[in-house]
Parts: sequence; structure tokens; C-alpha cells
Amino acid sequence: MLFRQATRADVYEIINLLANDKLGKLREILENPLPDQYYAAFEKIVTDPNQELIVLEDDNGTIIGTMQLSFLQYLTYQGGIRAQIEAVRVREDQRGKGIGERMFLWAIERSKERKAHLIQLTTDKKRPEALKLYEKLGFKASHEGMKLHF
Amino acid sequence: MLFRQATRADVYEIINLLANDKLGKLREILENPLPDQYYAAFEKIVTDPNQELIVLEDDNGTIIGTMQLSFLQYLTYQGGIRAQIEAVRVREDQRGKGIGERMFLWAIERSKERKAHLIQLTTDKKRPEALKLYEKLGFKASHEGMKLHF
Repeated sequence: MLFRQATRADVYEIINLLANDKLGKLREILENPLPDQYYAAFEKIVTDPNQELIVLEDDNGTIIGTMQLSFLQYLTYQGGIRAQIEAVRVREDQRGKGIGERMFLWAIERSKERKAHLIQLTTDKKRPEALKLYEKLGFKASHEGMKLHF
Repeated sequence: MLFRQATRADVYEIINLLANDKLGKLREILENPLPDQYYAAFEKIVTDPNQELIVLEDDNGTIIGTMQLSFLQYLTYQGGIRAQIEAVRVREDQRGKGIGERMFLWAIERSKERKAHLIQLTTDKKRPEALKLYEKLGFKASHEGMKLHF
């Protein structure tokens, strides 16, 4: 398996993964070709040095996972950097094999390389199975994750 | 009262606000002059077009509040931008006057101007009084906010 930065050629498959999910299917538009706004968003992400859009390939070069890491500079914690994970998906036919855990372990190492002092995420309370994985990895549910949709 | 982008000359007062807090006092180093890493962090924040470090001045030009807004581009939600609020503080002698609420209302409007589709934050479960304010403003505690400190 190979972790690498996503390229423009990966965008369709990433959206396919994002849309193939009980919450994601309500949010995304999976058409071929994709709506332009996905490519516009991709360009903004990959040209931002504080963002990493990651894909995981299996040995055949098939994309089986994706996640986005953001490295956020704050004044808090003596000018610390926080790593944040969002938009994590494992391909449906590859779930239950520990791939999500391998992705998070990779993200933790990557965040240490980038000198983050912590890694954070929010997880929908409607995904209790995900919460268990994060706790196993050492994450503490110390905060409420609050959202206001416009 | 005036909301504006922070300048280098504001950094000491911002750290003073961040440190004057039951959690913040354990995390920050308030010395005069400040440790260099605060200024290095400040430069990274203000040169990043996706970050806004905000201060609130009273009519005398005294800084009475601070917050940091991040505008995060994702592929999810059809290539949407999320606004995120972190490092919010109101000066101790100004608390209980609705200033926090005014800051959040300003942040919500600013996030709409920046074309965000939602605004998010995490709040420490040890701050129950903050949770009530966020719920009043329309935030939903739909997620667990999980942190892993290195």
C-alpha cells in the first residue's frame, strides 16, 4: 500500500469515495465529468502549503482511501501548529480490514513530521463505530464539536 | 467597538488575553518581551490568506477580545469552504457583557462573506457556560471533538 499526495487525475475517484457513504451521498454530486467546483476546490487545496490531500493506493494502484490533513498555525500553545483530519473515507469493499487505522497511524506520523503538537478531528455522533477507533488510537473526546450550517 | 485584523503590535496583548484563562495559563508563556515563537507564529498566520487573526477594540482603543478564523477548503460539500473559530477570549474585566456573543455574530457574518457553508468550533467540555452561548447562536453539538496530544 502507498500513501501519496492526490493529483488532479484522482479527483473523480476521491469524490466517488466521499459520495459512497450514508452522510456523504446526501452532500456530493457524483457525475462524469464532475461539476467544475470540485476541480476549483482541488486547485485551492493543492496550492496551499498547509493542506495535504492524501490518497491510499493498494498494490494494483487502486485508490482505497482518502483523507485531508490541515496544518493550522495558531498563537496558542506558544505558537503551536495543530494537525486536523477531515474527509476520511475507506473504499466500501475494503472496510473492516484495519485500513482506517493504518491511515490514522500514517496521519499521526505525518503530523509529527510537520511539527504539530496535537492532532484533532471531529466525528459525527451518528458514527459510533468511528469513535471507538479514534479512542483506540489515543484520541480523547474532550470537546464538543459544534457546527452551524448556513 | 471595532473589529479589525491584528497587527504585530497587538501580539503581546493577545497573548495576555490567551494566558488569562484557567486553561490558557497552563499553556502560554507571558513574558515581556514574549518568546520569539509567538512572533514567528504570528507571521505565518498573517501571511496566510486563509487565516484571520481578529482583535476587538473598545472605544478607547483597548483590546478587549481576540479570536482566530480559518477558512478551510475541502472537496466535501461540493468543494465547500468551512469556517473554523479557535482561540476566542474576552478580556477578564469585560466578561458577562455579551461581548463574546457579539464576537461570534461578527464571525458568522465574516464567514458568510468568505463564502463558507458552515462555521465550526470545538469547545472543551470543561467550559459548560460556553456551550450554552454557542447553542443560543444556533450551533449544534452534533460531533465529538477529539484531540490527541503528542
